[in-house]
Amino acid sequence: MRIVITGGAGFLASRLARALLARGSLTDARGESREIRDLVLVDVVPATISDRRVSVVTGDLAEPALIERVVTDDTDSIFHLAAVVSGQAEAEFDIGMRVNLDATRALLERCRKLPRPPKFVFTSSLAVFGGALPDPVPDDAVLTPQTSYGTQKAIGELLVYDMTRKGYIDGRSLRLPTVTVRPGKPNKAASSFASGIIREPLSGVDAICPVARDTRVWVTSPNAVVANLIVGHEAPATKFAHTRSINVPGILVGVGEMVDALRRIAGDAVADRVKWQLDPAIDRIVQTWPARFAPVLGPALGMQADSDVESIIRQYVEDERPQG
Amino acid sequence: MRIVITGGAGFLASRLARALLARGSLTDARGESREIRDLVLVDVVPATISDRRVSVVTGDLAEPALIERVVTDDTDSIFHLAAVVSGQAEAEFDIGMRVNLDATRALLERCRKLPRPPKFVFTSSLAVFGGALPDPVPDDAVLTPQTSYGTQKAIGELLVYDMTRKGYIDGRSLRLPTVTVRPGKPNKAASSFASGIIREPLSGVDAICPVARDTRVWVTSPNAVVANLIVGHEAPATKFAHTRSINVPGILVGVGEMVDALRRIAGDAVADRVKWQLDPAIDRIVQTWPARFAPVLGPALGMQADSDVESIIRQYVEDERPQG
Repeated sequence: MRIVITGGAGFLASRLARALLARGSLTDARGESREIRDLVLVDVVPATISDRRVSVVTGDLAEPALIERVVTDDTDSIFHLAAVVSGQAEAEFDIGMRVNLDATRALLERCRKLPRPPKFVFTSSLAVFGGALPDPVPDDAVLTPQTSYGTQKAIGELLVYDMTRKGYIDGRSLRLPTVTVRPGKPNKAASSFASGIIREPLSGVDAICPVARDTRVWVTSPNAVVANLIVGHEAPATKFAHTRSINVPGILVGVGEMVDALRRIAGDAVADRVKWQLDPAIDRIVQTWPARFAPVLGPALGMQADSDVESIIRQYVEDERPQG
Repeated sequence: MRIVITGGAGFLASRLARALLARGSLTDARGESREIRDLVLVDVVPATISDRRVSVVTGDLAEPALIERVVTDDTDSIFHLAAVVSGQAEAEFDIGMRVNLDATRALLERCRKLPRPPKFVFTSSLAVFGGALPDPVPDDAVLTPQTSYGTQKAIGELLVYDMTRKGYIDGRSLRLPTVTVRPGKPNKAASSFASGIIREPLSGVDAICPVARDTRVWVTSPNAVVANLIVGHEAPATKFAHTRSINVPGILVGVGEMVDALRRIAGDAVADRVKWQLDPAIDRIVQTWPARFAPVLGPALGMQADSDVESIIRQYVEDERPQG
């Protein structure tokens, strides 16, 4: 079995790749369990996983020639994680459209040409929602994104579903909660603070929180979301009806509660490194996202949420700071 | 004021053009009433309206050079009616994507470059809905199109809203009911029968009805929908919240009832020219469309539905067969 992961050098993709390699097999679009023999990680920067089954490709997914080279005729599954994040897509409209819309479409068009329709896991986002919504948000809530990123993800979902319906691919669109705690540096995602306010203080660095303490966010740990990406891939096609979109389970947490949990785990000196300084541009984007969901399909497929925010923070401490 | 109508040689566009010329003025994006001095009708075949204010352009909207030539810097409003219809978009996926998605996007991108953001009226469709829906369908129902045409229209709506939110255009997406009675020949729209079963028998020709008698459809007359397109253009931007999409009012009617009304108006000999012969491909598409809506925003803006199906048929007889 040959699997392609786009955005393959990213944090989630690396975690997913390691989980797939450890697992050793996946179910293909015909429902057969197959051994993973080739795992291709494609990104603008090289991925750094070393395993005899892994090949690393660098290049721009918006270039059709690259897609042609990466998505070969024997490709069985694609995890499409590459994206321009929310803050950047809002600030730089053309770049967002090019990567989030054009590259996604080019990838889907390539899949359509394969001799066997592949499985296609598209990482969508809770940013497809916005505006006046029921609380909690049901699986079948209307898509009224209030950001360009959310718009581009919603369009991707529509294309994934239509091409699935036409039999070109076996697609699944997973609307991921905000992933925390991400290691590394802050990025241009409007949700970047949700990792920064935990990660930076634990590293002895001050972190600016650009939204108010009472802002609520729908979050997931990296471990939970990677497990749920695999559940999404494995789910039988028969479990879906008039859409291939899934609200991935998360937990509802206030930003202030996150810092309180950090305080309980790491003490006052660490938690006090969080500085509250509202950033109107980021706050506007975050406020358009609903915070509480009532997912039904995701849990029915076997997706799970984290138990609480403390366990999410402890997961980060254990995973990323083994020397701590 | 300069107005562009795409699909300008089509039946609805011709009706809309005549209504605009008779009206003489429209409200621009800054809320000012302006005299209509230039009305540009662009289509793959030449429009045939003769008026000193009208210019006719022929060409393929999917060609950026044509868009550049037609949407000049002094353009105030665009009515984007050009589309590949539902049956063709389902049978010929690439053509549907090219016209319904790529040309719409190219047009929006051109509008974004204008010195003043223009008004942009996008003709969407009830085909953006499908699957399991409440009956009646509320304005904020989820978009789960079950056809490629509906998918492409839903994507157009998302782009129109996002570009409006960004301030690039002042957009409005009108989800039109099935328009009946259209004059002329049958086309590749799955809904073509809704006109054919009235038009053909009145012309002494047999008509095949490809769906069952008890199929219900959400319909509008040409006069009502042209009036509603103008209402949609004129609506102040302040009347919209988290979307620019409007479910345009229509009436719910059974296909059998349409033929019964034809029988009352034109007699048994005419009505008996309707032959019931199920076409599974057309029936599948039509069955994905919900039939009953509960529009709130449209009527609040001043949009109106027809009173009943008999008045719709009589409108056709009066408009199109003056010699009858």
